[in-house]
Amino acid sequence: MADIARLAGVSVSTVSRALSGSKLVNAETRQRVAELARSLNYSINLGAQNLRLQKNRTVAVVVPFEAASRQHISDPFFLALVGSIADALTDQGYDMLLSRVDAEHLDLAAQFYDSGKAIGVIMVGQWRHHDQLNALAARQLPLVVWGGAMPQQLYCTVGGDNTDGGLQATRHLLQLGRRRIAFLGDAALPEVWLRREGYQQALREAGLQADPALELALPFEPGGARTALERWLPQAPAFDAVVACSDLLALQAIHTLRAAGRRVPEDVAVVGYDDMPLAAYCDPPLSTVHQPVAEAGAELVATLMAQLRGERSPSRTLGVSLIVRRSAA
Amino acid sequence: MADIARLAGVSVSTVSRALSGSKLVNAETRQRVAELARSLNYSINLGAQNLRLQKNRTVAVVVPFEAASRQHISDPFFLALVGSIADALTDQGYDMLLSRVDAEHLDLAAQFYDSGKAIGVIMVGQWRHHDQLNALAARQLPLVVWGGAMPQQLYCTVGGDNTDGGLQATRHLLQLGRRRIAFLGDAALPEVWLRREGYQQALREAGLQADPALELALPFEPGGARTALERWLPQAPAFDAVVACSDLLALQAIHTLRAAGRRVPEDVAVVGYDDMPLAAYCDPPLSTVHQPVAEAGAELVATLMAQLRGERSPSRTLGVSLIVRRSAA
Repeated sequence: MADIARLAGVSVSTVSRALSGSKLVNAETRQRVAELARSLNYSINLGAQNLRLQKNRTVAVVVPFEAASRQHISDPFFLALVGSIADALTDQGYDMLLSRVDAEHLDLAAQFYDSGKAIGVIMVGQWRHHDQLNALAARQLPLVVWGGAMPQQLYCTVGGDNTDGGLQATRHLLQLGRRRIAFLGDAALPEVWLRREGYQQALREAGLQADPALELALPFEPGGARTALERWLPQAPAFDAVVACSDLLALQAIHTLRAAGRRVPEDVAVVGYDDMPLAAYCDPPLSTVHQPVAEAGAELVATLMAQLRGERSPSRTLGVSLIVRRSAA
Repeated sequence: MADIARLAGVSVSTVSRALSGSKLVNAETRQRVAELARSLNYSINLGAQNLRLQKNRTVAVVVPFEAASRQHISDPFFLALVGSIADALTDQGYDMLLSRVDAEHLDLAAQFYDSGKAIGVIMVGQWRHHDQLNALAARQLPLVVWGGAMPQQLYCTVGGDNTDGGLQATRHLLQLGRRRIAFLGDAALPEVWLRREGYQQALREAGLQADPALELALPFEPGGARTALERWLPQAPAFDAVVACSDLLALQAIHTLRAAGRRVPEDVAVVGYDDMPLAAYCDPPLSTVHQPVAEAGAELVATLMAQLRGERSPSRTLGVSLIVRRSAA
């Protein structure tokens, strides 16, 4: 109430009278105070903690979209991550403003902070604009990004250990005796880039050289991925295994391979990424790199809260683990 | 800017000078105007449409949780629905405040409106408190609920045609020659109740009587569902088919049946509900009732917007269709 009084330029007792509808306050001031109270989220229902202006408890969660494909939030992993962040924010008593920005303009995420709508931003994915994320961090925006730690990074990331995930998946396929291993994923995205680092490292350990003709820069978006796979497969060199950068991509690869008469896992062993709840029920059950989704939401929120308290918040990498099922066993 | 001037009790030119940092305005007023501008979401980045006080463009999307199981948002259908609503709100230039409330206190959703944080509420699911939703509608809260149209309903719902979904699934199983059809889902939830209506209608059409011993009130939450299935199966009467109220429940039923040595679909044919993207890749590929997820988000948002314009917004039922795959073919 002190805030309303200060902002309206009237006394606290005037605000109190105005809010109770007293005729001692003139109509214009009553109206002004009522609007202010509403815009400042003043509500008797919200409890004392929200009364004061500085107690905004809303965090912006931004899921970028690719303007070209007008991609909907359809990837099960991103959806699950959004759910996990919502759970973690609820546990801590915060509201979540879920928004989408063009992936070519990640810097637009600053508007939620600049406008006072949110006290900080959690960005779901790094996409292709490391530079813009660095610029946001440089101007002290409270920001945590789901993704992989990269060189020359000013912003804070929380993410799975992508390099280790790529490494574990590829080592496993090599142990099964596979030698010609395709890599499906768009390495322009930092997380995929890191997974490919792990893939290449595993090949080197085995004395093999990565064949660029076995890399396909598949988008995560299902429609585009399917088209690209169907175009690529007939003219791809021979291969006996696949590392795919999501479970959905792995399943689409399996579908495309079978349509072309190849058996999975006999002719081609396939490892996915994410370990979505349905991966165990797939045909065949999917070997995949498990990402700690529930932990991810809690870590993203805890890291943002540390920033807001003015503490150091170094980037964090969460452990991942290969789950072996029939698609590569 | 006129709003800030009015609320601060100063002139528009003073606000303009204060925002540009002019020393012609005293420090106290500059500070007051800056705070007001921030709290009123005034931002040069936000464009003219957001400048005015009455132009709040935030919609609260509420996903209730069951306090007992402390259920996370893990159901793929609810997650996909949240994604679809986010896309529809973005398309229309609205922000989305994603929140969770205890499913025993759906009326808490009013706080987002009462506090001025949101101009209306989209509730994801009806849960068990029809009465509380009616009370919210009775007090004129702008509200649209994803769910089934029920008797004595004051609030507005948008949902799939649950009765028809249950009917189509059960008729299909009957046409396959199945006679002992189990129903898995908690009929205390209105959508499940309606699906069971369709299930019972199909049985009546075939001259059969529903056997209450073949109904299991499974929760949607995966852990609880698995436990309940494993307890139920050994003492359930014989059955040759299953109608499950989500794809995840269908897959868990298949898993539990196979663990008990029953073959799917030979011994037990299974139909799921939702048609999630992964249903086609399951083992066996899942016959299921397709829900129009992308359309659902757009319809929920359009219905809320109609309410906000003061138009009548009758409840809407969206068509569903059975997709036949190998689990029941």
